[in-house]
Amino acid sequence: MSLSAFDHPILSGLFGDPELAELLSARADVEAMVAFEMALAQAQAECGIIPLADAGSIARLADEYAPDFGGLRAGLGRDGVVAPELVKQMRKGLDSQVARSFHFGATSQDVIDTSLVIRLKSITTILASRIAAVETMLADLSDRFGDCKLMARTRMQDALEISVADRIADWSAPLVRHRLRLEEIKARLLVVQYGGAVGVLEKLGEDGSLVTSALASRLGLGVTEKSWHNQRDSIVEFAGWLGLVSGSLGKMGQDIALMAQNAVGDVVLAGGGGSSAMPHKSNPVSAEVLVTLARYTAGSSGILAQSLVHEQERSGAAWTLEWLVLPQMIMATGSSLLIAVRLLDSIQSLGQA
Amino acid sequence: MSLSAFDHPILSGLFGDPELAELLSARADVEAMVAFEMALAQAQAECGIIPLADAGSIARLADEYAPDFGGLRAGLGRDGVVAPELVKQMRKGLDSQVARSFHFGATSQDVIDTSLVIRLKSITTILASRIAAVETMLADLSDRFGDCKLMARTRMQDALEISVADRIADWSAPLVRHRLRLEEIKARLLVVQYGGAVGVLEKLGEDGSLVTSALASRLGLGVTEKSWHNQRDSIVEFAGWLGLVSGSLGKMGQDIALMAQNAVGDVVLAGGGGSSAMPHKSNPVSAEVLVTLARYTAGSSGILAQSLVHEQERSGAAWTLEWLVLPQMIMATGSSLLIAVRLLDSIQSLGQA
Amino acid sequence: MSLSAFDHPILSGLFGDPELAELLSARADVEAMVAFEMALAQAQAECGIIPLADAGSIARLADEYAPDFGGLRAGLGRDGVVAPELVKQMRKGLDSQVARSFHFGATSQDVIDTSLVIRLKSITTILASRIAAVETMLADLSDRFGDCKLMARTRMQDALEISVADRIADWSAPLVRHRLRLEEIKARLLVVQYGGAVGVLEKLGEDGSLVTSALASRLGLGVTEKSWHNQRDSIVEFAGWLGLVSGSLGKMGQDIALMAQNAVGDVVLAGGGGSSAMPHKSNPVSAEVLVTLARYTAGSSGILAQSLVHEQERSGAAWTLEWLVLPQMIMATGSSLLIAVRLLDSIQSLGQA
Amino acid sequence: MSLSAFDHPILSGLFGDPELAELLSARADVEAMVAFEMALAQAQAECGIIPLADAGSIARLADEYAPDFGGLRAGLGRDGVVAPELVKQMRKGLDSQVARSFHFGATSQDVIDTSLVIRLKSITTILASRIAAVETMLADLSDRFGDCKLMARTRMQDALEISVADRIADWSAPLVRHRLRLEEIKARLLVVQYGGAVGVLEKLGEDGSLVTSALASRLGLGVTEKSWHNQRDSIVEFAGWLGLVSGSLGKMGQDIALMAQNAVGDVVLAGGGGSSAMPHKSNPVSAEVLVTLARYTAGSSGILAQSLVHEQERSGAAWTLEWLVLPQMIMATGSSLLIAVRLLDSIQSLGQA
Repeated sequence: MSLSAFDHPILSGLFGDPELAELLSARADVEAMVAFEMALAQAQAECGIIPLADAGSIARLADEYAPDFGGLRAGLGRDGVVAPELVKQMRKGLDSQVARSFHFGATSQDVIDTSLVIRLKSITTILASRIAAVETMLADLSDRFGDCKLMARTRMQDALEISVADRIADWSAPLVRHRLRLEEIKARLLVVQYGGAVGVLEKLGEDGSLVTSALASRLGLGVTEKSWHNQRDSIVEFAGWLGLVSGSLGKMGQDIALMAQNAVGDVVLAGGGGSSAMPHKSNPVSAEVLVTLARYTAGSSGILAQSLVHEQERSGAAWTLEWLVLPQMIMATGSSLLIAVRLLDSIQSLGQA
Repeated sequence: MSLSAFDHPILSGLFGDPELAELLSARADVEAMVAFEMALAQAQAECGIIPLADAGSIARLADEYAPDFGGLRAGLGRDGVVAPELVKQMRKGLDSQVARSFHFGATSQDVIDTSLVIRLKSITTILASRIAAVETMLADLSDRFGDCKLMARTRMQDALEISVADRIADWSAPLVRHRLRLEEIKARLLVVQYGGAVGVLEKLGEDGSLVTSALASRLGLGVTEKSWHNQRDSIVEFAGWLGLVSGSLGKMGQDIALMAQNAVGDVVLAGGGGSSAMPHKSNPVSAEVLVTLARYTAGSSGILAQSLVHEQERSGAAWTLEWLVLPQMIMATGSSLLIAVRLLDSIQSLGQA
Repeated sequence: MSLSAFDHPILSGLFGDPELAELLSARADVEAMVAFEMALAQAQAECGIIPLADAGSIARLADEYAPDFGGLRAGLGRDGVVAPELVKQMRKGLDSQVARSFHFGATSQDVIDTSLVIRLKSITTILASRIAAVETMLADLSDRFGDCKLMARTRMQDALEISVADRIADWSAPLVRHRLRLEEIKARLLVVQYGGAVGVLEKLGEDGSLVTSALASRLGLGVTEKSWHNQRDSIVEFAGWLGLVSGSLGKMGQDIALMAQNAVGDVVLAGGGGSSAMPHKSNPVSAEVLVTLARYTAGSSGILAQSLVHEQERSGAAWTLEWLVLPQMIMATGSSLLIAVRLLDSIQSLGQA
Repeated sequence: MSLSAFDHPILSGLFGDPELAELLSARADVEAMVAFEMALAQAQAECGIIPLADAGSIARLADEYAPDFGGLRAGLGRDGVVAPELVKQMRKGLDSQVARSFHFGATSQDVIDTSLVIRLKSITTILASRIAAVETMLADLSDRFGDCKLMARTRMQDALEISVADRIADWSAPLVRHRLRLEEIKARLLVVQYGGAVGVLEKLGEDGSLVTSALASRLGLGVTEKSWHNQRDSIVEFAGWLGLVSGSLGKMGQDIALMAQNAVGDVVLAGGGGSSAMPHKSNPVSAEVLVTLARYTAGSSGILAQSLVHEQERSGAAWTLEWLVLPQMIMATGSSLLIAVRLLDSIQSLGQA
């Protein structure tokens, strides 16, 4: 039973991205939530908020806590968020005195948002490296076929002859910008969430920002002046970036699908998909699905942006919308990059010698 | 590993819909594709296109064929569609002569689209019945609390007093229309897809429409004058309907979340979600996520509609987009209905006596 | 100053649709709002709610009332809806006693929504007739070129030969269904809005439905059991239909743009757009912008559907969203149909003899 | 006749933004296109590509050329772009020899895209300054009411008390980031478009980048390594930013609409919209329409992102889509900012003393 194309028993043959899927799995989510709780206890011990011994006891949970996923599932169904049940499960492994030091001053959103950000740190690294890999492949193709001729086409009509290098440059330049953009975005995105019940760390008084900094530092994340619990702009900005990456690859896919038309013959692709009715065909499947994924992430970015209207101190309606859309957008973009690599790898010639 | 909220190990505690998820599973898809092939062989035997004995041999595959999902996954990765590999796997169980009678005149899209439609037939029945159930619950609530007073609010301001029955009527009336709409849509949606390689059943000559009718009749589906392979309007229309249903429930959810505000107190809900930081709270989680799901399906309907631009005789780009969006929309709507039932069931009082 | 492409001093050369633009103009809106008020007074006189003489005095306003648009504009800025100022302006022309009979029991939304519906009645008639005209043109083209050969293309690759008639059938069949759908939708869409302040006609008591029926009958509209003020499903359903129409034309446009490729040559178009740099080119502008409009209405339908979450008895937020999106969608669809006619009219040959 | 709410005779009372509307007017567009042609001639003279005297003659056109808008409109209808007719009209004022130096090496897209960028330079300045103004107003409100108490609300339920300053901080922090983002985006967005027929400046040979730099310098714009004609990522990135700005204001509007509920009373607003049926009401119209505009730009960003799939060297379909969506998004965001100022200005008190 699997409804998303990205981890579907059959469709994942095309759309699968095990590396990112693992980072977006429930298991990795729980692991990162546990890491948040560990780092929080350590940061609080470091700042003298909780006894050092308590932090030590809590640290042992990292190894000892075995999530009861059925319980987490039921908890989510009840509370709308996983954290209350997760905290309860983890507290069971602690003495009642230590338990009071656990999850101190934190709320569900702190755990859940920070878990996302911890994993986005890995995800953005992976995506950046894949983009760079596509750039390298394009540079190689340009080295091999760059001098070949290509009819430039504007408004679907033959225009003037250009070189293959010219067209590849139009595929490559946006990717360079996307990596630059990601660096800018990461400074805003990879920040810890820690605000307590209503975003003001009311239980920590003047120590709030000290603990937040210590926590962020232990997690390798940045900080914002105040908890960003209801300020979702950096999440939506990142989603927009996913749309840009996937969109640029979609343009390349559309170009290659057009180049692969029999009457055009501007590209020769190895492999290509078969047909159950026409054995002679070789379909540019990878090129086509880059277009699919571009249209999907483009539209999805417009849905996710609806979550900016995040009312009051926490909107169950708006926040939950992110959960429905963002993981799929990450997968679609990761998948786009893997497919782009496969597509470029299958190119046997470009343009006319 | 599970990326969609609808079958996520944790999130499904809220969004799960096992009944629909089963119908959208890979297993059910394969089963329906097998059913298509069985019905096709029988219809063709009935029309004298293939030997009756061949249809008999093929019929045995329904029991004998054990899908190799790994192979199907690899085939999808190669061909962009599952059918070529599925047909290959199934043909292995047939004598080479009978094999020629198998999948005769059909193409991948026939198998895949018809499999979808077969399952949409069950799905629409389930959805209609759930809508009716929500209507019944609303009628019951109206019976119990209809005479209670409620401050009507326009533009977020107190307006004039109405009765609870008045507001319930606004939740209920669209649902009645949605069931009516579904009846209209089903006549266009629940139709067999059978067109062969390019939609004209070139291998069947004059027998095309005869076989199509026999095939449709065996599957309990309708027919169109010509294969609808690149005419996706009825799929998009259905997706729009899903958005209508989920949207109307989202309106109800938004209303109830507003009624549940502490300062308003127009509804008392049993249960309600807990908080990891504020044990006193009782959150109207179900009401909120109805809004979430409404915004999700609304936006998704705008993505799916992009697939209407389905170029030429088959667009890999546009068709594949449906696979990314439609199952999630069905689940979101099914889930909305289940959550609506839970929400209404949790209502302990409405309005002021 | 004109921001919409549909009435832009320059862009309307391509996207203009004066017939629909007129129906969506502020002038036509005011005219229909006045018609609502006239019909309301007459219906109420007929039902004995207001004196017959008052209805007579009010009727004179239809000729006498000269809208002060500056005042209406200021009123809209103040109230968020035009009706309070419009009613105030109109009341100025009435004796104070008659003034009390004017707009009796009605609220802003009654006037504004019914004005929309009055004009949608004309708009849907125009759209249906344009769709029929496109169907006729397609039938003519099929008569002329239907027997010509065409390479069917699936997944952007040559598949098997079909006839031009086969492809035209795929363009035409959805249009037939769109007209059928419109008939079904009209029964739900072309209904009067009359609910008073909070949708229950509290000032009319038991006469509510009688007056509503009389009002609807005078306006040539249908009725719903209860005011649909916060039930926006039929509006969103209609917008989805606009997306279907425009999307089907977008598919045809995409096909023709692909057929017009120099290397393909499956269509010869008269005219075609020029280039400022390449005088030799003849661009299939009309075909391309059908795709543009399809993508625009597709996405717009996903925005409009957000307005289903119309909280409480009237949502300024959700209702106003309709005003931003629906007129543009109507224009985009109307424009699509006009452009489709021009495109089909420019076809000099199709396929290979 | 005016279909967009942003320049509608009535609706502009609420949504109007004359300053931005002027920059997006056909007149300003033509003016900026003329500026492009002037700067191009001067840059080419400076680089020795055309005679200095020719540039002088061309310069005179800036004053002498009187656009024939009817002709431009007809040209757009014919060519799908305004530039061919504009160039033709302007060339009429030149000697035939000079005429050859005019628009040299340029194509329609160069003129049109650069005109957009020239105006985006002003537009981004205005938007940044308006955002800063909103920040200042928020700081003032925080000075005045920051110490007042406010019930924080999570998931629509009372949570814990915070201060008004806490909530204002959540409105303000995203705005600070938006201005920072804009600075980053401007470096990529405010770049000249100059690539000739197919993006490679084939008529300029080795002088291409020299002329481009001189041209950019005269227009106060940056350059990209190669023409970005079919690389639309910076346009889509900017549109995403518009969605972020409008979305953050929508969150503030939603909060204020909730605070203004009678039962809540966390804000007192001066003015407020009236009702035609309930004179006692004071509606938080500005707060509501901030939500409207947020949902509109959110969804619109998802449509615009579809234009990333910009096939080959120029896509009429994708490029034209930008024209339908981007101006409206700019207006919606500009309008959001003006409305936010009015809303904040109307606040008479916040929170509980």
